[in-house]
Amino acid sequence: MEAGTASGITLEELGLAARNHAMPLEALRHAVTPLGLHYLLIHFDIPAVDAAEWRLTLGGRVERPRELTLAELQALPQRTLPVTFECAGNGRALLEPRGSLSQPWLNEAVGTGEWTGTPLAPLLEEAGVASDAIDVVFTGLDRGAQGGVMQDYARAVPISEALREDVLLVWAINGQPLPPQHGHPLRVVVPGWYGMTQVKWLCAITVLAEPFRGWQQEVSYRMRQAEEEQGEPVSRMRPRALMVPPGVPDFFTRTRLLEPGMCLIEGRAWSGHGPIERVEVSVDGGDWRPAELGEHLSPYAWCGWSFEWQAEPGAHELRCRASDAAGQAQPEEPEWNLDGFCNNAPQRVAVLVGEQPELLLPS
Amino acid sequence: MEAGTASGITLEELGLAARNHAMPLEALRHAVTPLGLHYLLIHFDIPAVDAAEWRLTLGGRVERPRELTLAELQALPQRTLPVTFECAGNGRALLEPRGSLSQPWLNEAVGTGEWTGTPLAPLLEEAGVASDAIDVVFTGLDRGAQGGVMQDYARAVPISEALREDVLLVWAINGQPLPPQHGHPLRVVVPGWYGMTQVKWLCAITVLAEPFRGWQQEVSYRMRQAEEEQGEPVSRMRPRALMVPPGVPDFFTRTRLLEPGMCLIEGRAWSGHGPIERVEVSVDGGDWRPAELGEHLSPYAWCGWSFEWQAEPGAHELRCRASDAAGQAQPEEPEWNLDGFCNNAPQRVAVLVGEQPELLLPS
Repeated sequence: MEAGTASGITLEELGLAARNHAMPLEALRHAVTPLGLHYLLIHFDIPAVDAAEWRLTLGGRVERPRELTLAELQALPQRTLPVTFECAGNGRALLEPRGSLSQPWLNEAVGTGEWTGTPLAPLLEEAGVASDAIDVVFTGLDRGAQGGVMQDYARAVPISEALREDVLLVWAINGQPLPPQHGHPLRVVVPGWYGMTQVKWLCAITVLAEPFRGWQQEVSYRMRQAEEEQGEPVSRMRPRALMVPPGVPDFFTRTRLLEPGMCLIEGRAWSGHGPIERVEVSVDGGDWRPAELGEHLSPYAWCGWSFEWQAEPGAHELRCRASDAAGQAQPEEPEWNLDGFCNNAPQRVAVLVGEQPELLLPS
Repeated sequence: MEAGTASGITLEELGLAARNHAMPLEALRHAVTPLGLHYLLIHFDIPAVDAAEWRLTLGGRVERPRELTLAELQALPQRTLPVTFECAGNGRALLEPRGSLSQPWLNEAVGTGEWTGTPLAPLLEEAGVASDAIDVVFTGLDRGAQGGVMQDYARAVPISEALREDVLLVWAINGQPLPPQHGHPLRVVVPGWYGMTQVKWLCAITVLAEPFRGWQQEVSYRMRQAEEEQGEPVSRMRPRALMVPPGVPDFFTRTRLLEPGMCLIEGRAWSGHGPIERVEVSVDGGDWRPAELGEHLSPYAWCGWSFEWQAEPGAHELRCRASDAAGQAQPEEPEWNLDGFCNNAPQRVAVLVGEQPELLLPS
């Protein structure tokens, strides 16, 4: 086997890529991602949690702080929502030049779960949120150092977002109790936001009268061009379309191999800003042509799309892109930022078409 | 964040690392690996299989070839076995110099499932295996090119192995129907052998009167020093011990951070050659000291172990190693081979111990 393109990927990045799972792109064929194929980004270790001992504290700027058991939460009104999550760092390893090093995602840090839990808003309302509340902090049981700072993983959303009726505290995915890697026994789901907000192994919800200044909020997950910049915080998912790569793969390069003829290309598209309005496909750098759109699985999840491609013999590159009802669209090229967030440049898929397409592979 | 050690990992290798999941090492705390944390190595794509249409053919050198539905298989006697699988390429990316490039595993390509299915031997006996049978080929529905050859993934075992009473055709893992990534609707489980033998999306079992010459048997999965060598085929898992890295991690380097004092190090060890007889731990290159052994989960699965370490302030390196009842032991250093198979050199874990261990991290 030939050596591939040198990339400067470090052993540390490889260590993160081994731990953190992407969704193999053929799993886009499932409207709800099967358990074990949903992407995972776990900053520290998966904590060992005894659900019987576990408690959720709800405190800070509330009149009636409280502590809840899992059984108490599960006795509250339940709701199941299909929600698409994407890691804010998706596409990071495709940026040139490389920025600061972190989990080296290519295109696949996404997944859709059917999340079951109880809405957060009634709990906050019952607790009596102070009128000066600004942020609601979600703290997990996962602990470690990042940027030299020892920390429990914690992220906040503005109080207005926390009070949305679709924000859930969930204990199940796809009809099963949360497995360890998805936050057993409880995580928060804030539809529309990138994954860093969907705090796993949730143990505390804290209402603040000032902006949250935790490391993951103030230092990380910000769009900046240089270390000294404060930058804009990452929040909602930008639009993105991905396709199931057509044909079959070459093992090492993942180049797609296909026989000539009509090929139905299928994929999914999502945005945290609004419903997907358009998906387009470009072949070999040519015009963007419209794909057929399916239904959104829910207002918070991706929608399917398909495109008929007449595959002619030879080497081709397919791209796809989406735009949403809020007027956001995927850019032609990545928008570079130091920490590699929100890179929603179009997916590129290399395809070799022939009667025996494997003969077109470089030897 | 600082750039890490340059490693020459290529973008193609990163693409494989994104698709193929390792088991985060803290999951060693589970005797049975939770669904979604078991390692996955998928050569081509996960195929889309309609279980209602799917059939298993049993043919070749048998008197009564047959075709079976999933319902017919599930009506046969059932057995559930905890079995540990490891990828034959586990440890590949730690070899120096790098050999031929493939999935760049570090240490974590392992997992233990509780597999439920029906024994293969009675099916073969009923079919009437010819007396000149040599190999039994398992063919999957996963298809693609590797080494320039278009192929359906297929591996064989000698007829004597296929007739072992513990070889199962399985449709469930951990009490649940096989998910797509583990071979839905059926895979074979040959306890003791590396993962390449545990063929997923099984569609054909073929008895041969000559040695199987498929690409994955004759070209790949062989221990060789150079391209032109034929090499020895990879078969049973060599002994290996792994520990749950103690303390908490630094996000990027995964260096472990720990306060001084007594630290109980826990892990698991396995071998495909026989029961684990000994696990030992070495601190900072010092003497190998015995760990306490637990029970094997089954004759085909790992056993737990633990070791009490008095953690003194400073930087340390922990290693662990196992040996089995067949007299096999982990070597001090990797045994290099071109394709990076069976590297069972001891795991090394870097630990910083201090009252505020994060202050010991290089800035």
